[in-house]
Amino acid sequence: MTTTNTTTIRNGIDTAQVYGTLDALRTQPELARFEFRATNRWIGGTHSRSTIQGLWGAGQEDTSRDAPFEVDASEPPVLFGDNEAPNPAEFVLHALAGCLTLTIVNVAAARSVTLTEVSSTLEGVLDARGATGVDETRRNGFEAVRVSLSIKGDASPAKLREIVERAKARSVVYDIIANPVAIELQAEVG
Amino acid sequence: MTTTNTTTIRNGIDTAQVYGTLDALRTQPELARFEFRATNRWIGGTHSRSTIQGLWGAGQEDTSRDAPFEVDASEPPVLFGDNEAPNPAEFVLHALAGCLTLTIVNVAAARSVTLTEVSSTLEGVLDARGATGVDETRRNGFEAVRVSLSIKGDASPAKLREIVERAKARSVVYDIIANPVAIELQAEVG
Repeated sequence: MTTTNTTTIRNGIDTAQVYGTLDALRTQPELARFEFRATNRWIGGTHSRSTIQGLWGAGQEDTSRDAPFEVDASEPPVLFGDNEAPNPAEFVLHALAGCLTLTIVNVAAARSVTLTEVSSTLEGVLDARGATGVDETRRNGFEAVRVSLSIKGDASPAKLREIVERAKARSVVYDIIANPVAIELQAEVG
Repeated sequence: MTTTNTTTIRNGIDTAQVYGTLDALRTQPELARFEFRATNRWIGGTHSRSTIQGLWGAGQEDTSRDAPFEVDASEPPVLFGDNEAPNPAEFVLHALAGCLTLTIVNVAAARSVTLTEVSSTLEGVLDARGATGVDETRRNGFEAVRVSLSIKGDASPAKLREIVERAKARSVVYDIIANPVAIELQAEVG
């Protein structure tokens, strides 16, 4: 009798679960619809708080979170706030960083690469004459975002680069920032 | 002698500071450059942590934050994580909510409207066949984002709607999501 000591966990990702999910998405495309949500409430000045808990995914309402996450946003004094929290543009960078990192980790796990480090530094540059309306020819948002990634693991530099390229091509938030997303906004006033 | 008891604070925003800033941006456009930053480090599995502290703005390095903000990101179990934090797509919704809210509050303050409530619910829908690579014809990111805003204050419904419309047209994160942003990604591997 041969005992094979295998584990499906790599980089903290259960690759058996990943492959099972991919198979399920191929045969039951209705499982692919995900709906993420946040509710936000103004606290005062530039300060607000988002509550994040429920989501829809894999064909059902996800109830895995016992308690809601609460995340604040505000501005530094130079942008009329009191540094109660990072500002919304910084949260965009955080979202991009977190998404690239976890996508790299997933891709590496699927390709049997064990990682020892993924770190990144992100910068987003904007011209405040856009958002303030001082110059209508400027855009409000980032003119550009720069990402400097560092990734280490038990694979050749070429394979690690391939993993980064695949993650860039598959990242949810990279796509949201790099490409247009339709936003429908409804307001109840009174 | 007449004593006028005026305050320039409305909705928690110092409108005198806002007008001073707009004047400065008109006469010294070099003050308009802002650079926001985040650094991120992989912790394990889908879990990573961003550190946010310094920024460049108004012609100098901003040192108003004594300590860095730390914000985590991860995934629920259905997306191979353990709910250590909201996921990156949810942080995009948080960033949009926080930005719309503070832009509304700023616009209202500038228009002498005192607000009593700004709240919002956001939903972002995506098809996971995109990001997983199961269906190359699907995009990775949100197919659409829906924002339901509620705003109350001492102005007519028409004026409140006008404030929402102006904020939508001036929001930094709305622009980043609705329109393309160039992302430059460099990777150091090894």
